[in-house]
Amino acid sequence: MQTVAHKLSPEESLRAANTNFYAAFESLDLVQMEGVWAHDDDVSCVHAGSELLLGWEEVRDRWARIFANAKKVRVALSCVWLRVEGNAGWVVCTERVTTAFTEGFDDTRVQATNIFVRTDDGWLLVARHASPLPSAARTPVQ
Amino acid sequence: MQTVAHKLSPEESLRAANTNFYAAFESLDLVQMEGVWAHDDDVSCVHAGSELLLGWEEVRDRWARIFANAKKVRVALSCVWLRVEGNAGWVVCTERVTTAFTEGFDDTRVQATNIFVRTDDGWLLVARHASPLPSAARTPVQ
Repeated sequence: MQTVAHKLSPEESLRAANTNFYAAFESLDLVQMEGVWAHDDDVSCVHAGSELLLGWEEVRDRWARIFANAKKVRVALSCVWLRVEGNAGWVVCTERVTTAFTEGFDDTRVQATNIFVRTDDGWLLVARHASPLPSAARTPVQ
Repeated sequence: MQTVAHKLSPEESLRAANTNFYAAFESLDLVQMEGVWAHDDDVSCVHAGSELLLGWEEVRDRWARIFANAKKVRVALSCVWLRVEGNAGWVVCTERVTTAFTEGFDDTRVQATNIFVRTDDGWLLVARHASPLPSAARTPVQ
């Protein structure tokens, strides 16, 4: 008896890649985060409220710093919207990011655009632009 | 005698489309801005410090409001970086946006990601994500 695996549509696999990115974010595991990004000089990342990072080395180093400073991160997504154009695809979504530090935590709402490129290894993240939403309930608690 | 027009590379035409977008921004002319965007339900726009706008109608209406409130806009670009993947392409750049209102003006630094799709009518803007840079010298003067 044969089982036929469901072949994901480009939109479904893009959505899965985006989910994997947030799983890597929550994992605080740099190896897992490395797995979702393309590793070239052309990747870019704008973290919420920050300057542009360009090239995998800069992007990776910032994730390492973020992960070193956080004890736990949870990201709840809403308004997830995506579009595929050939081997490029992007996801526009709203994140509620709750971060626990050694002392206190941070709760922010972030608008994000994540751009992926489809490769032989599946969709890889090549550009991320995140920005704080104006109504962000930024409540550091000590 | 024949003259051979220089055929623009995808990167060159993408850069030109991005330049046209900023020319439309500076023109404060809604018709010109309409010309650079795709007009479908799937376009998205995050203005600096604002919530997501989804669909051409919302995007267009906000431009109309921005243009109605501004007397003059000048945008100086720096750190312009772009990438083409098939019929999709995006530009990551830093904007210095100077806006004159009836009373006073505003001077902000903005990080932007502009995503275009190549159509029979050339590159059209389909998604924009802009966010204020942390060191923005926001100096409203009356």
